[in-house]
Formats: sequence, structure tokens, C-alpha cells
Amino acid sequence: MDQGHADDLIRGVREGDVPCVARVLSMVENGHDLAPVMMHDLYDPERAGLTVGITGPPGAGKSTLTSRLISHWRLAGRKVGVIAVDPSSPFSGGALLGDRLRMQEHASDPGVFIRSMGSRGHLGGLAGSTRDALEVLAAASYDPVLVETVGVGQAEVEIASLADLTLLVLVPGLGDEVQTMKAGIMEIGDMIVLNKADRQGIDQLESAVMASLELISDESRRPPVIRCSAQTGQGVEDLTAEIDRFISGMEGRAEMARRRTSLILESIIREKGREMAGAVVAERFGSVDEAVESILRGETTPYRIGSMLSHYPRRAIGE
Amino acid sequence: MDQGHADDLIRGVREGDVPCVARVLSMVENGHDLAPVMMHDLYDPERAGLTVGITGPPGAGKSTLTSRLISHWRLAGRKVGVIAVDPSSPFSGGALLGDRLRMQEHASDPGVFIRSMGSRGHLGGLAGSTRDALEVLAAASYDPVLVETVGVGQAEVEIASLADLTLLVLVPGLGDEVQTMKAGIMEIGDMIVLNKADRQGIDQLESAVMASLELISDESRRPPVIRCSAQTGQGVEDLTAEIDRFISGMEGRAEMARRRTSLILESIIREKGREMAGAVVAERFGSVDEAVESILRGETTPYRIGSMLSHYPRRAIGE
Repeated sequence: MDQGHADDLIRGVREGDVPCVARVLSMVENGHDLAPVMMHDLYDPERAGLTVGITGPPGAGKSTLTSRLISHWRLAGRKVGVIAVDPSSPFSGGALLGDRLRMQEHASDPGVFIRSMGSRGHLGGLAGSTRDALEVLAAASYDPVLVETVGVGQAEVEIASLADLTLLVLVPGLGDEVQTMKAGIMEIGDMIVLNKADRQGIDQLESAVMASLELISDESRRPPVIRCSAQTGQGVEDLTAEIDRFISGMEGRAEMARRRTSLILESIIREKGREMAGAVVAERFGSVDEAVESILRGETTPYRIGSMLSHYPRRAIGE
Repeated sequence: MDQGHADDLIRGVREGDVPCVARVLSMVENGHDLAPVMMHDLYDPERAGLTVGITGPPGAGKSTLTSRLISHWRLAGRKVGVIAVDPSSPFSGGALLGDRLRMQEHASDPGVFIRSMGSRGHLGGLAGSTRDALEVLAAASYDPVLVETVGVGQAEVEIASLADLTLLVLVPGLGDEVQTMKAGIMEIGDMIVLNKADRQGIDQLESAVMASLELISDESRRPPVIRCSAQTGQGVEDLTAEIDRFISGMEGRAEMARRRTSLILESIIREKGREMAGAVVAERFGSVDEAVESILRGETTPYRIGSMLSHYPRRAIGE
């Protein structure tokens, strides 16, 4: 593919042409040479579209909530993009994953674009592919673009946090470890959604969440807590109203633009850093595998190689 | 602290002196200048001690299983190290986290060393601290050293996978998303533990797991599946026997040494890479924050900075 074709694809994305969007997403996932150039063209820190991350422990009802939110925004006449991320699934591409079948009801709606991302075939890592896919869909005028992750591991949190706004979904009675998480989990979400609010234990869950939020001394920084039932739809309007409030509460576009740019840049620094350090090790030892052999022969240790990497850029830059 | 004190601490760790071990772990967590030097001295790819990662979804009973395994190895007269990792907890240090209280029964046993690690105060990242803590405890003759993580996110999987052997713990009836994970989750564990085997749904879970394992075409690479009940202790002997078999099945020490060295080096490459790329961006823009401002002024994009980083080492090395 040459630059001319790339320009056609970029124009297609901007016009919301679905095959072009799908094609560019595949190029991003496969690490196509032209992908960074296209992303450079498509990136707009001040884009109007919103991206929303949805995360929370397995069983919290994230897919059902996502499906509800899609319906809400579709009724409002908006085009909705969805990226369903499951780092533990080997599958990527068009196919929907497991219980994401709940989203199938929207699959035939031309105003909804759904893409699954599993663990395979992401040269720059799954987080990098998701990050770029959000920008591609936003550039194609999907607004909002939702990214739903399985689990609350650091990778999922990282992925959901790349969105402009992150919802942390919790439910009553998901086992002791949800409680274990509570102290730290509060740092994840811009909003806490207490799903399955019709279930026993919802009051205890809310008390626990509220107690945890008191650890955040600046009250204005405490995320709002919204009860809902994705199953019945109860409370979902409150949630979308809160999302609108969050957006209008930002000091104009500038604050949002700064936040998203900072997150994307940090993510790219991590991704490229891994590549850079690997190249330095390969330069010194021939390859990373040969570095392992050198360690096994007792010539060095991973920690000495780490020290070499620590000193590398300073020396290289300083010269 | 000077090198002489560092040498004393290293000697203390090798002799299994508990205050020295605790001190060195804190130095590792806090990114002390001498930490890499000490790790370089303590690292032994051919160490006899085994490290075991224990991961699985919240509610799978990992803490109870860990506690059972500790009891088993204590009865066999072995010193056991435990690192309890919760990336969502802000707490690190001696205190036990939430339901890790189940492990408290071992806290007063001088043959058991338990350390919690939360998300705060890890200069090189939580994965880096955990990785190094495993080596410190192994160097202090704890054998095995167990690392238990909350959740099955990529970070937890990364952490658990830094161990010589990783147990993936699953239980019946943990919601749809456990099933969603099944296709990919098989890649995580060297052994699959079906916990709460006295519960309804254990047969279905085993069938689902077995079906997933058939995706691994090389039968010899399919992980063993062991049923147990950490609560009652039933099946725990089978699990420990399987662990012993795993170790003796390795082609001698050499295979294990290569595997652990490779994992540790990859982890260090990721960690140092982030630092290197950040330094390059700072060299070009003054700081990462100033790079963000430059992007907001429309002078560049995160993707162009990514391209700069992609070309950086080649140019720097090639000159």
C-alpha cells in the first residue's frame, strides 16, 4: 500500500465509511508500517467525541450495562462505537466474545460499530491497539466510543483508563476479594456504578464504597456513585445524565484534550520503550536470547543488563 | 548506605536473617540506588529454590489454597516465603491485605515469611518489585516462595508468570465471564487447579477446561488439571505431588534456569525501556509534560513522537 491509498483510507474514516474503518483498525492491530502515519493524521486532541471505558470484576454485568448504554445513545440518535477487550481471549476481529453475545442485538444496527480485541496479533500490544482503535472510531464520528474490558487487572485498568471517562462497575456479593480491592479500586473510576441494585447487599456495598471514598481527602475529587440495574434499565438514565455532567464539568475542551493527550503519550512511551530497550540489548548481545545465554554462562545478570539500560540513554544523549 | 553495609545485608540475606531480608525487600520496593547491585549479587539462575505463582479470578479461593500449601510444606520442614500482591491496594509492607487474613495463622510461624505488596511506592513498578522480591526470598533459602495475586488481569498474570511455575485456580459458578476467559486462560497456567471441587458445577467446569485444552495441539504441552478443595484439604496432596512431578520433569536445572532468566530479563527490558523512552522524550521536549503541551499546540502528535522513538536507538546506535 502506498501513501495515496493511505490518504484514501484516512478520508474514508473521516467520512465514517465502515469498510475503511475496519481496514484501518486491522492495520493498527497488525502493526502495518503506515499505521503510525495514519494515526498521526487522524489524531485530534480536541475531538468532540467522547470515549468511555467500562471496567470492573468478572460478573459485574459490564456487557449488559454496555448494551443498555448503547440503546440509550442510539435513541438519542448518536452513532456508537464499541471495543470489547478480553486479554485472555486469543480471538480478535469481528467475532464477538463469549457473553458479549449480549451485545449481538446491536450488531445489525448500522449506527453501532462493534469490534472485539483479544490477545493475539497486536504487534504493539493490546493496550496500544485499543488506544489507537478508540481514536480511529472517534475520528469516524462515533460518539461515544465505549471500551469494555474483562477483569480489573492492571492491563484492563490501563486500557479502560485510556478513555476520556472510566466507569468502574461493582455489584453486591461478588466474593470477599471485591471487598479486598475496595481501598485501591477507588482510584480507577471517574464514576462508580453499583450495578444489580435490586440485589441483596447493595446497601452494604454502597457503605463500603462510600467509606473507601473518604480516603480521598479532596471531596471534589471523589467520584460520583450511581446505583443502577442494567438488567431492568432502572437508574441507567441517572448514569447517562451523570456522564453528561462530567463532560460539561470539564473546564472546556482544553482540560479533556490535555488529559487524553497525556494518557496516550504515556502509553506510547511504554510501548516504544520496550522496543528501544530490546534493541539496545540486541545491539550488545546479538539478540535478547543470546543475552539470556550470556547470563546462564555466568558472564552477567539481568540486573547488570538493567544497569546498562539505565545508563544507556544518558550516555548516548550526552555524547 | 555504602557498599560495605550492602555486603553485610547480602550476607544476611544468604544466611536467612529475617531483618536483613525485610530491609532488602524495602530497598527493592523503594528503588534504592544499591538495589540493582544487591540483586546482581543475589541473582543465581541455577538456584535450587522453587517459586510458585498462584493466580485466578477473584473468589477462586486462592488465599485459602495458599494457606493450605504453606501448611503442607511446613509439615515437610521447608521454610516458605509468600508474597501477596494486590495491585488495587494502596498498601505495601508487612500488613496483610483484606482476606489474606486467612494467611494470618502462619504469620507467627518463624519458618514462614509473608510480605504484602500493593500499588504504592514501587519505583520500578509492582511487577519489578515482585520479581526481585522472589529472588531475594529464594536467596534467603525460602523454598518454595509463593506469589499470590488478586485477579487475572495482564499485570497479575505477568507477576504470577515470573514464578518458575504458575497455578491457575478456577472454581465452579463464578459467573459467565470465567467461561468467556476459558479459551485464552489456558495459556496462563502450568497447572490448572479446579478448586471447590465439592461444589455443584465442578463437572461442567472440568469439561469446559478440558475442551479448551484441546486447542493446544501438542498434548505434552497441555497443563495438568487437578481438582481439590482448599477448604477441606481434599486433593491438596495430589496438587503438591503434581508440582514435584513438574519440577523433576524439567530437563534438569538448566531448563528451569533458562526459563526464569528469560522471564526476568524480559521484565527488566520493559521496565528500563519505559525509563529510556521517557528520557528521550524529555531530552527532546524538556519533559514529558512539555511534550504534551507541544502536542496541544498542534506542533506534533503522540504518534509522531512514537515514530521518533522507533527510530531513535537505530540512529543512536548506528552513528
